[in-house]
Amino acid sequence: MKKMVLSVLVEDTAGVLNRVAGLFSRRGYSIDSLTVGSSEKKGFSRMTIVVKGEDDVLEQIIKQISKLVDVKEINVLMDGMSVCRDLVLVKVAVTAEQRQQIISIADIFRAKIVDVSAASLMIELTGNQAKIAAFLNLLEGFEIKELVRTGITGLSRGTLDELGEMDADWEA
Amino acid sequence: MKKMVLSVLVEDTAGVLNRVAGLFSRRGYSIDSLTVGSSEKKGFSRMTIVVKGEDDVLEQIIKQISKLVDVKEINVLMDGMSVCRDLVLVKVAVTAEQRQQIISIADIFRAKIVDVSAASLMIELTGNQAKIAAFLNLLEGFEIKELVRTGITGLSRGTLDELGEMDADWEA
Repeated sequence: MKKMVLSVLVEDTAGVLNRVAGLFSRRGYSIDSLTVGSSEKKGFSRMTIVVKGEDDVLEQIIKQISKLVDVKEINVLMDGMSVCRDLVLVKVAVTAEQRQQIISIADIFRAKIVDVSAASLMIELTGNQAKIAAFLNLLEGFEIKELVRTGITGLSRGTLDELGEMDADWEA
Repeated sequence: MKKMVLSVLVEDTAGVLNRVAGLFSRRGYSIDSLTVGSSEKKGFSRMTIVVKGEDDVLEQIIKQISKLVDVKEINVLMDGMSVCRDLVLVKVAVTAEQRQQIISIADIFRAKIVDVSAASLMIELTGNQAKIAAFLNLLEGFEIKELVRTGITGLSRGTLDELGEMDADWEA
């Protein structure tokens, strides 16, 4: 099973999320994560969808999504040629002793302490999947009260476009 | 129209996203943003949904969502009693001159430069809605090539639970 990150530019219509989610659900494709937010174009949102499957299934998914009328553009974000980020908020129960340990772990990962109370700390961390996994591993000895993640979002790196532009110059 | 941020703990079933999205679409509720990712409980995901509407509509939405079988818990994240975060990745086209201007703006917001190429910069920023809006305002004079946002995710502050615990102590 491979993991694929899709960046999909969609029109901001009322049912677009439903149509995309419906497509995955009807065909039994499993979504690892999905985020949707505004894009650089007015009236358009950008969805980032992470799916797992064999090569033929992933190919099918791309075909099916591109058939939806709301979909204007679809890109596969490749490892190394894109920047992918996930954001996690974790509320950890702490004793006075544990508080300093948690703060030290947060420092190592350049995570931010966003809320402190008598018995808990809330930490915000952004990074790629590997960084967040490593951070959550270190927290395993502690009591995680609540955890929420946005899921992956991403963009292709700038170099891709510029190679295109350079090619054009050479041809001229 | 009011804005409401819902934090919904759902079972990780294949069709759960479809059922939630379908509910909004059928009833014509408009979703501002939606994120879904793993939670602190194995087999459960936490969705953060931002919706706009009048009081009666928002009340209805809460009722309808809590009826779905996959939904285990539903919380309204209130301003000041919760921490909400959004993550944005922006690719900006830059000349050599503009590069330093953009880096200065990024510094003010403690944003990270995550990709640099000859003709563009990619910036990562996390924060609440107000911070991200202020940042994007400052970028308005520049050419935004691509922009992607995760949408809002959030957790209630630690103090809430502890007040609960303190109440229990007082009763004892």
